[in-house]
Amino acid sequence: MPLNKAFHALADPTRRAVVRRLRDGAATVTELAESFDMALQSFMQHLKVPEDCGLVKSKKVGRVRICEIDHQQIGSAEEWVSEFCRARERRLDRLDEHLNNVGKKRKKHDK
Amino acid sequence: MPLNKAFHALADPTRRAVVRRLRDGAATVTELAESFDMALQSFMQHLKVPEDCGLVKSKKVGRVRICEIDHQQIGSAEEWVSEFCRARERRLDRLDEHLNNVGKKRKKHDK
Repeated sequence: MPLNKAFHALADPTRRAVVRRLRDGAATVTELAESFDMALQSFMQHLKVPEDCGLVKSKKVGRVRICEIDHQQIGSAEEWVSEFCRARERRLDRLDEHLNNVGKKRKKHDK
Repeated sequence: MPLNKAFHALADPTRRAVVRRLRDGAATVTELAESFDMALQSFMQHLKVPEDCGLVKSKKVGRVRICEIDHQQIGSAEEWVSEFCRARERRLDRLDEHLNNVGKKRKKHDK
């Protein structure tokens, strides 16, 4: 299930850091390893998890491996969380409206 | 780490369903079990994970256990994902602007 995979991939600080770095554009594995101050070999191990989760995809161009975010996968997580936020905001708006109405009625009653 | 916990809690369909149900307000464990068409005992097992992750908190009021979302925990996940979206949108805006400028220069050149 894509959502399970996406959230699982985000449940680790190194994986989140890779995703955040790639948000600004594709990068080679060497560039990524450098920006995390890691040996290429160790970094390859770290990269395996978000790749397995389908959050990051990579392709070999000549002798270089280029990584980028799989926006479809992270998009499903974005959608779930933002729908959650919007629904919560709508609920708070309704509460706000209700409290305003109670306030108005009270004022009217106090007059 | 709160973010790890929050994303871990969201990486499972039952846990997401509990969170979505509680988004609209607190509910007793019995109400939750009913809305998931589950025996109370089985549901209690399912509820344990988001509670352990700190995404859902519960308190006993008399003989009833009331569950609600721990907004601080899910808030950190919201923040991370929405910051990710905003930064991506800003990047797309800049790309859009760049392409517009290229288009304008081309038109000028073609005249």
